[in-house]
Amino acid sequence: MPTSATPPPYYAVIFTSLRTDLDGEGYAATAARMEQLAAEQPGFLGVESARGADGVGITVSYWDSLESIRRWREHAEHQLAQQNGKAKWYAQYTLRICRVEEAYGFEAVPAQQKPSHAPPA
Amino acid sequence: MPTSATPPPYYAVIFTSLRTDLDGEGYAATAARMEQLAAEQPGFLGVESARGADGVGITVSYWDSLESIRRWREHAEHQLAQQNGKAKWYAQYTLRICRVEEAYGFEAVPAQQKPSHAPPA
Repeated sequence: MPTSATPPPYYAVIFTSLRTDLDGEGYAATAARMEQLAAEQPGFLGVESARGADGVGITVSYWDSLESIRRWREHAEHQLAQQNGKAKWYAQYTLRICRVEEAYGFEAVPAQQKPSHAPPA
Repeated sequence: MPTSATPPPYYAVIFTSLRTDLDGEGYAATAARMEQLAAEQPGFLGVESARGADGVGITVSYWDSLESIRRWREHAEHQLAQQNGKAKWYAQYTLRICRVEEAYGFEAVPAQQKPSHAPPA
């Protein structure tokens, strides 16, 4: 995922999908391959993905520019995966292209790592 | 989720999180309540959520403006939930505020619903 070293603005592609129950093995192999291939593209900043037991999945990939997103969309192997996605793997999906305007994070400090000189709460 | 009746531009809040294993019951109740409460706020357009078996979750909520997002962030009951999130429920999270520039969808036509007068492929 984009680290705090990547300040906004940058771009996000939000891909929300509902799987069919077809070809789980082929889907999983292609999903893993696409994640690997995306990471090799110019302008790629990171990817995050989650799919729940109800079949709804959200994948967000991050990019430095709209041009990088366009090139990845038109990549030949990715285009083949998109065709298989429509033919077999997805009952429906929505794709949104966004400009990230602001980002911030939180990380819990594990109890055993809290510095002993921390001020009282 | 925002229907095709909501043309861009609009706004998205991408909330990516990693759960602790603390207080699953309290977390689930609050997550459901926040989803209900968000839906009642002015400017709310929709929400999508997925969490995988690895504990990584992505929730994307959609809003008509940055002002609606700011109001929801400052809502009193939501603020309490945010405090509990940091204290108990999340090992880490990242929150990104985005402007949705472009959106499109795909829906598979179930085989039995294909019109019989469809042209040959």
